[in-house]
Amino acid sequence: MNPYLTTHPWKIIETRFDPARVKAAESLFSIGNGIMGQRANFEETYTGETLPGSYIGGVYYPDKTRVGWWKNGYPEYFAKVLNSAFWIGVEVKVNGQLLDLHTAKTLDFYRELDMQHGLLTRRFTAQLPNKVVVEVEAIRFVSMLRTELGAMRYRLKVLSGDAQVEIKPYINADVKNEDANYDEKFWDFVAESASPSSQSVTMCTKKSRFSVCWFAQHEVSEAPRERTVTLYKYVGITSSLNHDSRDLARAAQAVAAEAQKVGFDTLLQEQRSAWEEKWAHCDVEIGGDDEAQQGIRFCIFQLLQTYTGKDARLNVGPKGFTGEKYGGSTYWDTEAYCIPFYLATAGEQVARELLKYRYNQLPKAIENATKLGFSGGAALYPMVTMNGEECHNEWEITFEEIHRNGAIAYAIYNYIRYTGDQNYLADYGAEVLMGIARFWTQRITWSGARSRYVMLGVTGPNEYENNVNNNWYTNYIACWCLRYAKESMEWVKKSQPQRYKAIIEKTLFDESAEWPQWMDIVEKMHFPKDEARQIFLQQDGYMDKEQILVKDLDPAQRPLNQKWSWDRILRSCFIKQADVLQGLYFFEDDFDIDTIARNFRFYESRTVHESSLSPCVHAILAAKIGDMDKAYDLYLRTSRLDLDDYNKEVDEGLHITSMAGSWMAVIQGFAGMRVKEGQLTFEPKLPKHWTHLSFYINFRGTIKKLNFKQ
Amino acid sequence: MNPYLTTHPWKIIETRFDPARVKAAESLFSIGNGIMGQRANFEETYTGETLPGSYIGGVYYPDKTRVGWWKNGYPEYFAKVLNSAFWIGVEVKVNGQLLDLHTAKTLDFYRELDMQHGLLTRRFTAQLPNKVVVEVEAIRFVSMLRTELGAMRYRLKVLSGDAQVEIKPYINADVKNEDANYDEKFWDFVAESASPSSQSVTMCTKKSRFSVCWFAQHEVSEAPRERTVTLYKYVGITSSLNHDSRDLARAAQAVAAEAQKVGFDTLLQEQRSAWEEKWAHCDVEIGGDDEAQQGIRFCIFQLLQTYTGKDARLNVGPKGFTGEKYGGSTYWDTEAYCIPFYLATAGEQVARELLKYRYNQLPKAIENATKLGFSGGAALYPMVTMNGEECHNEWEITFEEIHRNGAIAYAIYNYIRYTGDQNYLADYGAEVLMGIARFWTQRITWSGARSRYVMLGVTGPNEYENNVNNNWYTNYIACWCLRYAKESMEWVKKSQPQRYKAIIEKTLFDESAEWPQWMDIVEKMHFPKDEARQIFLQQDGYMDKEQILVKDLDPAQRPLNQKWSWDRILRSCFIKQADVLQGLYFFEDDFDIDTIARNFRFYESRTVHESSLSPCVHAILAAKIGDMDKAYDLYLRTSRLDLDDYNKEVDEGLHITSMAGSWMAVIQGFAGMRVKEGQLTFEPKLPKHWTHLSFYINFRGTIKKLNFKQ
Repeated sequence: MNPYLTTHPWKIIETRFDPARVKAAESLFSIGNGIMGQRANFEETYTGETLPGSYIGGVYYPDKTRVGWWKNGYPEYFAKVLNSAFWIGVEVKVNGQLLDLHTAKTLDFYRELDMQHGLLTRRFTAQLPNKVVVEVEAIRFVSMLRTELGAMRYRLKVLSGDAQVEIKPYINADVKNEDANYDEKFWDFVAESASPSSQSVTMCTKKSRFSVCWFAQHEVSEAPRERTVTLYKYVGITSSLNHDSRDLARAAQAVAAEAQKVGFDTLLQEQRSAWEEKWAHCDVEIGGDDEAQQGIRFCIFQLLQTYTGKDARLNVGPKGFTGEKYGGSTYWDTEAYCIPFYLATAGEQVARELLKYRYNQLPKAIENATKLGFSGGAALYPMVTMNGEECHNEWEITFEEIHRNGAIAYAIYNYIRYTGDQNYLADYGAEVLMGIARFWTQRITWSGARSRYVMLGVTGPNEYENNVNNNWYTNYIACWCLRYAKESMEWVKKSQPQRYKAIIEKTLFDESAEWPQWMDIVEKMHFPKDEARQIFLQQDGYMDKEQILVKDLDPAQRPLNQKWSWDRILRSCFIKQADVLQGLYFFEDDFDIDTIARNFRFYESRTVHESSLSPCVHAILAAKIGDMDKAYDLYLRTSRLDLDDYNKEVDEGLHITSMAGSWMAVIQGFAGMRVKEGQLTFEPKLPKHWTHLSFYINFRGTIKKLNFKQ
Repeated sequence: MNPYLTTHPWKIIETRFDPARVKAAESLFSIGNGIMGQRANFEETYTGETLPGSYIGGVYYPDKTRVGWWKNGYPEYFAKVLNSAFWIGVEVKVNGQLLDLHTAKTLDFYRELDMQHGLLTRRFTAQLPNKVVVEVEAIRFVSMLRTELGAMRYRLKVLSGDAQVEIKPYINADVKNEDANYDEKFWDFVAESASPSSQSVTMCTKKSRFSVCWFAQHEVSEAPRERTVTLYKYVGITSSLNHDSRDLARAAQAVAAEAQKVGFDTLLQEQRSAWEEKWAHCDVEIGGDDEAQQGIRFCIFQLLQTYTGKDARLNVGPKGFTGEKYGGSTYWDTEAYCIPFYLATAGEQVARELLKYRYNQLPKAIENATKLGFSGGAALYPMVTMNGEECHNEWEITFEEIHRNGAIAYAIYNYIRYTGDQNYLADYGAEVLMGIARFWTQRITWSGARSRYVMLGVTGPNEYENNVNNNWYTNYIACWCLRYAKESMEWVKKSQPQRYKAIIEKTLFDESAEWPQWMDIVEKMHFPKDEARQIFLQQDGYMDKEQILVKDLDPAQRPLNQKWSWDRILRSCFIKQADVLQGLYFFEDDFDIDTIARNFRFYESRTVHESSLSPCVHAILAAKIGDMDKAYDLYLRTSRLDLDDYNKEVDEGLHITSMAGSWMAVIQGFAGMRVKEGQLTFEPKLPKHWTHLSFYINFRGTIKKLNFKQ
């Protein structure tokens, strides 16, 4: 529990001003609309520690790779989400003195993120150094309906007698990325204009040449009797992703002007309704546990803010629009963690867009594999990407954490299992699966010594092991991919022979040579096992490690990734996140419950959960094997990861993709939801103190409300 | 063979000017005196492609680490040898036009490095754009006797009628390192002064605060009748390593003034004599093979230029004073490759200085190990160092290429075997060996699964494998270290009990606990083996790789490190440099000849020799097993690596440390020299076309000349 935040079922609330927590709060109170987002920076000047952040989905910059020791195959650039113009700015002067909470004395402070309605409100009373006391209320939102609009109202009242207030709204386009590799600026200036009631700036990214225009329409009204000044600011934000560059300013102006015409109160009402409508088919209600309730709604809220499925060029960055870290690019998180959430809350079409994102990038994945020495249409999807090109440069990850290819195949399977949309295979899926299967076929080695296929030099989901041989999870998902690719192609061949023919011709696929090769691998793959313990081995040689349990680790040594040198972590048996268990989660029907329980007990006790993606999968498996205390502990850890700042890094941004895992922990874990033969099934196991659990599920065109009681 | 260079037994000769080869020649014709060195840059202005380089041993700069993804345990800085003031500069104008071979037409060009006398001479005739034709002779050297002196004579004759010649000697201290991580300057300006006949500059390195002063005394004489101008430049170069900072300028001036007083011809004569004297006890003469002869003398010459054993703070950088690459720091190359050369050519004292360098850095090695989580006086020597601190930042090398610790122990053994100086153990060696043994003891893991000790997560000498388990070589040398450390300590205990007591007290050594633990490891260590082939396995799982021979590799794929992605190299069976074979070389007496031959044939056929340190060890083993064709091929490759530029990188500098390996290939390979029970033994096997081989060996105080005939 975070004693600093108020526990509330629908709101995130802060009731005092703590300069040391400004950056953390900026992350936690972020707002967005799937198209753009804004950290909860103060509107007025703030000279204390802050991380200004405003981001526009799909607008990125290829930052030149920084590396100590270059390895062949590294990409030249890391595509990064861009910190862009600070459009919320207001300079406030009272009797000539700047209002700045860093220099003023804050008498009273309240900030609220209304997750139900997508609104950020802040109220404070402050005494300036010149002794004038002011009361401020700032409310703002990024419109869910008008996706190119940001709107805010900033109201200031002088409490201590007469004072002259000057209020000057501004847009500051002179911004930098904190994570720039070489401290360069990523934007070029294009144009600006200003009038007493408006300001506009157009900027263009260097190299990638995305243009963005911010057009702000201002309205200031004074009520001298109440000593109150109110500023309305309507900002149209348009980018060359959606407009001809020459029309950007006109389009942005139109958005702002239309908003002004409609008026702030109406826009606010629109926003409330739009969000209520969203919640009406994706809320999760937990009875008897406000912390758990707040946690899950925070996760859902952030996911809805980050991705709406309206644009196949966008995806879900690990930090969404809440920070720069990880470059805002796409990871396997999307396929392994986010797809189930969007499928069940936003519907088939939204999840389909996420799949198509990878389909559209298939040529780049083939190019990527070719660069690494593969051939014949083998596809390796990048570890991190913005536009399909690999961005990562750490050999043990970039070249070796190849299980990501499996997650991309699995997402297709998962989508079809859920939606029944088998035709997706013919339209897009089969080609992706074939490219992935071809990759595995070449990445695998025939070991003469063992008379088995082996997979050498990989990094599994557990990144606390690098360059291992025969990671069980990777071997397993590779074989699964080969089988599923073949089955999928056979289905297309049978049900859409014309389309099949076209695919075969396009890909130069040779059925009689490739299929038998795939099946030979499936049949003769080596899977490491510990016979005595009857568990799957994370990789060859795992049992050579000193076997210590996490509970026996000195807490002063945690987190390991901050306390231990990298080689020590690698040599240890400690696990960062689900690895063998990720496989048992994905493919649970392939294993009996005792096998799952045995492996869970062995591996969970060695897992330090130092990845945000770790606790959720463990929570689901714990619930499955009936270890409800463990499941609940892990659930709280995942759903309140950022609210309670377990990893001491929320100031950098939120862990968006793991939030989808938290949702899975509730729905698949506690409610036990599965899709079996085209039907939803449930096996509820609520934590003891939960009075009830209810939620909405969008399944095959129908939104159902599910209710479970203790 | 390099058709560009003239084959000559004592000289390196270039007979034409090729702008594309300027940088390569600058490396090849470098001069030095063990204290400082200078690339063969032109004295006069040159505006074409060039890599100016002037280096002073022990003067370094801690350049801030550049890394893509930080890992715990990385050092903050990489200490780098500094490119320092360009003291050879002469600006020459003829009729107001700058002499610059990049713009002039070169009519005639000759450059010669006289290895016998340590002199660099260049002569050329050039027509300037203004049509004036000049003839130049430049001769320079870095004095072997007066280690703070550089001297040069620059003589210009106008060939085409009258012309006005202006000649302006200068020192340019405005220099940068090409390999600066953040493009920063490493030097601060301190002071300068000038008179018509002198110039002086004092600079100080940022952060590390080394001061250096260059003081040049000039003398210009004209012979108008011969239309000849001659410049003599005597440059004193003093550093705060050897002088009080306040005295630097005075000291440098004294060196220059004294040199001027003595005069150029006398200095030249001194230099000739000093070098002749050196050669008198380290020359290697090969009859009937000028290429081989030139190759080996080039190697010896460079080694003599790089290190003289006069200063225990200095060591042998992989590029010596010929380039910036590798930071000019110390690697395990010194112990594994250079010690035998200096032992046999320069004598016990010089090799002892190299050993003491590591002894002096023992506290830093203990600190380094502590930083990585080891304790109780365990020492891990750095992969790369200037002052004892680790400089490298690549986890698979920095933290895992720990066999370097073994080489440092082996050098002590090797030194004592050669010199009989057992007392070195009591004075210094035992402490180093104990720190190393303690490291191995902690770095090894008891595998319950195997009931054997294992060593997880290492990189062997073959850096084309990373993070492997049970690298045979590392396991072997680790056990050897444990045994040798114990034996050495027992010897000290017995023969110098007082000293032993002092060591035990200083190191808190617990005989009754530590020795048995060491011996337990020695007894129960796991060594991977291939039973069918009866070979030692490079590491666990090596035989799972696809087994291809180098001879079957497509030449278009070579060198692999330029053509293949890193993961592909790691997955392949191809070997960069001797690994198992390095162990068989070090510990040949532990194995019968058939075992050596079997392993040699297996591994050599999979080795691509993409490290400069590779061919020499293979040449020695090939000679040992009687494969003389292979031995000769590999010898040429090692001894003429730079002259013939096998690796296409000589422009960056020379491979100094591998030159010691070339010497070993002749002496230990073809002459079969060994030390057995305090005696030198020989087993000569000369390549067929060598008429004779003779060389000098300094052994236990006596310099012997050895002669072998076909």
